[in-house]
Amino acid sequence: MFRGLAKARAALGPRQVGRVQTMASHRLLVPPPEALRRPLSIPDRLLLTPGPSNLAPRVLEAGGMQAIGHMTKEMYQVMDEIKQGIQYVFQTQNPVTLAVSGSGNCALEVALFNLLEPGDSFLVGTNGIWGQRALEIGERIGARVHPMVKEPGGHYTLQEVEEGLTRHKPVLLFLTHSESSTGVMQPLDGYGQLCHRHECLLLVDSVASLGGVPIYMDQQGIDVLYSGSQKVLNCPPGTSLISFSSKAKYHHTTPVIGLYSLRESLALLVEQGLESSWQRHREATAYLHGRLQELGLQLFVRDPAIRLPTVTAVVVPAGYDWRDIVSYVQDHFNIEISGGLGPSMGKVLRIGLLGCNATRKNVDLVIEALKEALQHCPRNKL
Amino acid sequence: MFRGLAKARAALGPRQVGRVQTMASHRLLVPPPEALRRPLSIPDRLLLTPGPSNLAPRVLEAGGMQAIGHMTKEMYQVMDEIKQGIQYVFQTQNPVTLAVSGSGNCALEVALFNLLEPGDSFLVGTNGIWGQRALEIGERIGARVHPMVKEPGGHYTLQEVEEGLTRHKPVLLFLTHSESSTGVMQPLDGYGQLCHRHECLLLVDSVASLGGVPIYMDQQGIDVLYSGSQKVLNCPPGTSLISFSSKAKYHHTTPVIGLYSLRESLALLVEQGLESSWQRHREATAYLHGRLQELGLQLFVRDPAIRLPTVTAVVVPAGYDWRDIVSYVQDHFNIEISGGLGPSMGKVLRIGLLGCNATRKNVDLVIEALKEALQHCPRNKL
Repeated sequence: MFRGLAKARAALGPRQVGRVQTMASHRLLVPPPEALRRPLSIPDRLLLTPGPSNLAPRVLEAGGMQAIGHMTKEMYQVMDEIKQGIQYVFQTQNPVTLAVSGSGNCALEVALFNLLEPGDSFLVGTNGIWGQRALEIGERIGARVHPMVKEPGGHYTLQEVEEGLTRHKPVLLFLTHSESSTGVMQPLDGYGQLCHRHECLLLVDSVASLGGVPIYMDQQGIDVLYSGSQKVLNCPPGTSLISFSSKAKYHHTTPVIGLYSLRESLALLVEQGLESSWQRHREATAYLHGRLQELGLQLFVRDPAIRLPTVTAVVVPAGYDWRDIVSYVQDHFNIEISGGLGPSMGKVLRIGLLGCNATRKNVDLVIEALKEALQHCPRNKL
Repeated sequence: MFRGLAKARAALGPRQVGRVQTMASHRLLVPPPEALRRPLSIPDRLLLTPGPSNLAPRVLEAGGMQAIGHMTKEMYQVMDEIKQGIQYVFQTQNPVTLAVSGSGNCALEVALFNLLEPGDSFLVGTNGIWGQRALEIGERIGARVHPMVKEPGGHYTLQEVEEGLTRHKPVLLFLTHSESSTGVMQPLDGYGQLCHRHECLLLVDSVASLGGVPIYMDQQGIDVLYSGSQKVLNCPPGTSLISFSSKAKYHHTTPVIGLYSLRESLALLVEQGLESSWQRHREATAYLHGRLQELGLQLFVRDPAIRLPTVTAVVVPAGYDWRDIVSYVQDHFNIEISGGLGPSMGKVLRIGLLGCNATRKNVDLVIEALKEALQHCPRNKL
């Protein structure tokens, strides 16, 4: 969404015109652009950023399927299968479990607009970009927002959360399970129950972890949980997943093809089993961590217990510009990795091992690329 | 978006829990759904509803392409080509011309949230469902909304608009170029200039007309114009097009594959030329109108000058239930058409001839299907 748009009105002053024309004679003044006469060409690349990840073959196939009406029985079937798939990957029995026609940020907006009223007290874990964003949306809604600010790389203990709940008496707590800007995994056991003792709801962002890291929505007492499609699910960006206990209905043209793809992504997780997906991510990322440390690189998150098994943040080695390393790896190895985001910008490189990309072979490829990049990129130019 | 969700909080009362658990032992309680173990199967169908329309072969191919990062130079190139393509199909030189990551309704929200402040006077042409929706969003923003209410099938003359401008002194006027719930095409010549004389901006919805009906954003003095991807563009739903004069920037994962598809849709219009696309829609729909009248059916829009050349509304013939006809055509001919929407619900059948579907061959197919449906569907059961 482009809500950040500056007000257009000021820029659009009334124009000088003569009398009203009732039958104007117009002609094409903007010619067809030459660039659109060339064929579309997209490179085939290994995507080891925090997302989007490569599409699994079966998901790729779904994206190439023909459209049908969004209000047909076949699409209701697809949507029902998606609902069941989300209930499985979220481990929830909530009846209001659905795909949102938009990015993960859109799912966050859906959650906050439905949970917060102006004046409500809202407690936000702000240890990276996603908490910052929840904070900003909360402020626009007019809630009284209480950030629990931490340096990038931090997380929240049960005791810290209890202090916030006692002091601010919030109606809602926001926590990021997978702080992909820093590679931190927030523990979730006990937080839902703690919130409920304080008559507070728990909202959790699991965009960069779902399917790759254990999460048990109902058992962990999470009230609202959302995630994205373009991470472990290996699905095109453009849809997201959400679950909560309420009733929903709204008419718009749902992204039919995007929903085929999401259905196939969920089917792949069903085929593998959630627990074996979690294990594969844990093993591949542990292998990556070992190989990075062999290269002399330092992991941004010091405590192994809170390292995300999907997105790894590596401290940019001294003297290097992170942009040189990212470019080298892309230009010479056809692999995308990324720099930091928000509060971790400039400090880290981020490597995603998401869904079908979470393999030892891909770790070997990216390690080889990084090794060569460190040899060839300029050092101490900063 | 699911903004219509009832408040979740009330439903989610605090739960009874004992003391805080710090190391819970969880297990999978929600089993993998059996439905997701079956392959995805989508019927091949001719889509002659008001949308989504069938995907053009080149667009279909784009949907099956592999992902790349949304912040790469290749995606910036695709987005730049999309911008140029939208400038061409909108006939505008506005620099703030872009694809929105969401449905046409999302583009309407983007427009209104950036043009209206609480307390602003907002004049809305409410002659169908889209004006009704603009009215509702305007009310939520807190604008003083002045609907110009018309029966479904109506449109607005320059004189009527001038009366509204004089009486309510709005900062913004909303008009629907293509009222797809009734099949009305709103004339646009002179309305922008009239608005500007009254220091009002003109916002136009062209979701169901763009590419199939002449529109000249700059020459017609339209300040903000938006459209959808799933109509004449023959692109999957999930992206939309908008243009206005301001600056925009916001980070989210753009729907990479959806943007490939949109790029290809625009390339197809460049290949054909806008004017020949308009002519093809005009001719195919004129042919449809003639064939419908031969069957004894009545067009919902009486005045041929304001009939949309993309979506045709036909009065449900006396004694029939529209649902029987829609089902018959789908079950026996594998063709989707639709009933009314919002104010036209129950009153009309709607037939879309959009993009690659706008052919005489498709008209012949749907006429044959309707003819047989009228013979076999129950009559006078109502």
